[in-house]
Amino acid sequence: MPPPPQPSGIDDAVPASVEDALASYLDGRRAELVERAPAVADAVDALSGFVLGGGKRIRPTFAWWGWRGAGGAADGERARAVLRAVSSLELLQACALVHDDLMDASAVRRGSPTVHVAFAETHRAKGWLGEPDRFGMAVAILVGDLALAWSEDMFTGCGLAFDALHRGREAWQAMRAEVLAGQYLDVLVQATGDESAAAALAVARMKTAAYTVERPLHLGAALAGAAPETIAEVRRFGADVGVAFQLRDDLLGVFGDTRTTGKPAGDDLREGKRTLLVALGLELAERDGRPADAEMLRTSLGDPRLDAESIDRIRAVLLDVGAVAAVEQRIEALTESAVAALAQARLAEPAASRLAGLAVAATSRDR
Amino acid sequence: MPPPPQPSGIDDAVPASVEDALASYLDGRRAELVERAPAVADAVDALSGFVLGGGKRIRPTFAWWGWRGAGGAADGERARAVLRAVSSLELLQACALVHDDLMDASAVRRGSPTVHVAFAETHRAKGWLGEPDRFGMAVAILVGDLALAWSEDMFTGCGLAFDALHRGREAWQAMRAEVLAGQYLDVLVQATGDESAAAALAVARMKTAAYTVERPLHLGAALAGAAPETIAEVRRFGADVGVAFQLRDDLLGVFGDTRTTGKPAGDDLREGKRTLLVALGLELAERDGRPADAEMLRTSLGDPRLDAESIDRIRAVLLDVGAVAAVEQRIEALTESAVAALAQARLAEPAASRLAGLAVAATSRDR
Repeated sequence: MPPPPQPSGIDDAVPASVEDALASYLDGRRAELVERAPAVADAVDALSGFVLGGGKRIRPTFAWWGWRGAGGAADGERARAVLRAVSSLELLQACALVHDDLMDASAVRRGSPTVHVAFAETHRAKGWLGEPDRFGMAVAILVGDLALAWSEDMFTGCGLAFDALHRGREAWQAMRAEVLAGQYLDVLVQATGDESAAAALAVARMKTAAYTVERPLHLGAALAGAAPETIAEVRRFGADVGVAFQLRDDLLGVFGDTRTTGKPAGDDLREGKRTLLVALGLELAERDGRPADAEMLRTSLGDPRLDAESIDRIRAVLLDVGAVAAVEQRIEALTESAVAALAQARLAEPAASRLAGLAVAATSRDR
Repeated sequence: MPPPPQPSGIDDAVPASVEDALASYLDGRRAELVERAPAVADAVDALSGFVLGGGKRIRPTFAWWGWRGAGGAADGERARAVLRAVSSLELLQACALVHDDLMDASAVRRGSPTVHVAFAETHRAKGWLGEPDRFGMAVAILVGDLALAWSEDMFTGCGLAFDALHRGREAWQAMRAEVLAGQYLDVLVQATGDESAAAALAVARMKTAAYTVERPLHLGAALAGAAPETIAEVRRFGADVGVAFQLRDDLLGVFGDTRTTGKPAGDDLREGKRTLLVALGLELAERDGRPADAEMLRTSLGDPRLDAESIDRIRAVLLDVGAVAAVEQRIEALTESAVAALAQARLAEPAASRLAGLAVAATSRDR
């Protein structure tokens, strides 16, 4: 028999360690629930498939390095407990994505049918009663709810002592409220058609920056018992990196290559996503006396039938009026101030270097 | 100035005490979130309005008497903390109802428009961009998610010491998983058209009995540190009362007076709800060689255009084949075994009497 694989340290394999923790947690919960209600297996399996089927584990990774940077151990019992605590962020993210896909009526996620689409198809294929789409919607709502409930359970039951958990509670609670508030703002801004840069930035701050980087780092550092000043600097770093990350995402959503982004080129434009890039495009076109360009942007945005030619025209306008340059500039400024905050935080190595690397990777042109 | 009203004990006013606890909790969370994102106020207010706008507080009430019955204090600091812990069940229930209304496309709840309908109407009235119904759906999903997240936060932050909270954790986690599993079973049974009595009972057990009575009682008793045997008896009482409660609800859904139920007569039939009553109706009609009656039941169920005459015909069949009598009999048997379990549990007074009273009230014909 071959020797069992030597477990490498969590530091060297955060995403893989997170996946192991999730797989083991979900297995346990599945067994417990399916024993009481066998028919629930399909819904639980949909959740497991979704959670274990991909993703960069970016939130647990930031949280892990927050823990390590504030002096948390690399291995041992407490480190394993923290790994479980930060892995629970992926269940929260599963709730956000499953519900988001439903709200956006997205058909595909990571190359597979989204949850609501998959269950609607099962319903259709089996010729069940009622409307397939309504069934798919109901299951996606419930699967997302289950993910949210279990993220909490996994966090609370991670094995850390009460005082440590209690220290992480502020970040945990704020993060959950912020991602939901951010999604609501996003939905509201799309509906009202708010064109302002301020609105686009508010959404980026709540929905991406706070939820994806700032609060995970805050959580990790708080679990390690970091001093308030350290937490403040770590959060500043996270907020800046997070907004820069979103701005890069917005640029990729319009100019990115399908092979890198995994989404059809120009999809963000067809969806009518209100980004800083678009807000600045409109603002600058108006300011520079190019009302025809502004009008073109306005009418194109959210048109599901936009063809490649129209997308090229939009790209040209965004470049010409200087919106792209302005966003690039802002990404650069945010990355600089993030790096400064990181230096101030005086985190332990290797966390400091890893976080600097993550900041660059998340915001660079060829990410 | 008049003197401040003398607070009466929680025992004498559980629902009002629960409402106070909820109002105060929601106020605090609102202030905190709206400070960071003012535009979120409408969504938070929708949640507050929903939670504070009605409901019998049945889950917190059972949980409170579970606590008192197992020796928990009637007043003082710990009692106040437990009141907050059990009040959090109403936020969980808000999530379940807001999401349920969306899944069922219900337009009205407690005499007001449901959350998804209210926000769709705002969208329509303001002439916003995109589809009003899609906007309403998105907001209802997010408001429900927020309710679920905050129920957890309210429970964890109730002020009880870690060991007490930890004792309640099993009931809390099981309850959340069970209500979601129960809703999924319900959706699945409607879709597959499963006519069996077993399926109807499984849904009643998970969705109503466990979630509404058994687990709240379990939670309250566990918070008080009840012995395992007491918890087992209390749960047996709760499971029996809970199923009986659902069976009474099913009868009222078909035979009840609109003035008592608040729902149009026969609405459960139009919705095609799969109840034990209907399952037994079909089973008995088939057994007694009345295929025409069985067929009539089958084709009527879930027909949204059922008129008063058809409903009367269905009622007559359910009575004639003995389905109503069989369900009444089962309610009686369940109530009896519940009362026996309650006696075995040897709970402290006044909890024992109050729970006996609740059992009768929840299952009696003129409830």
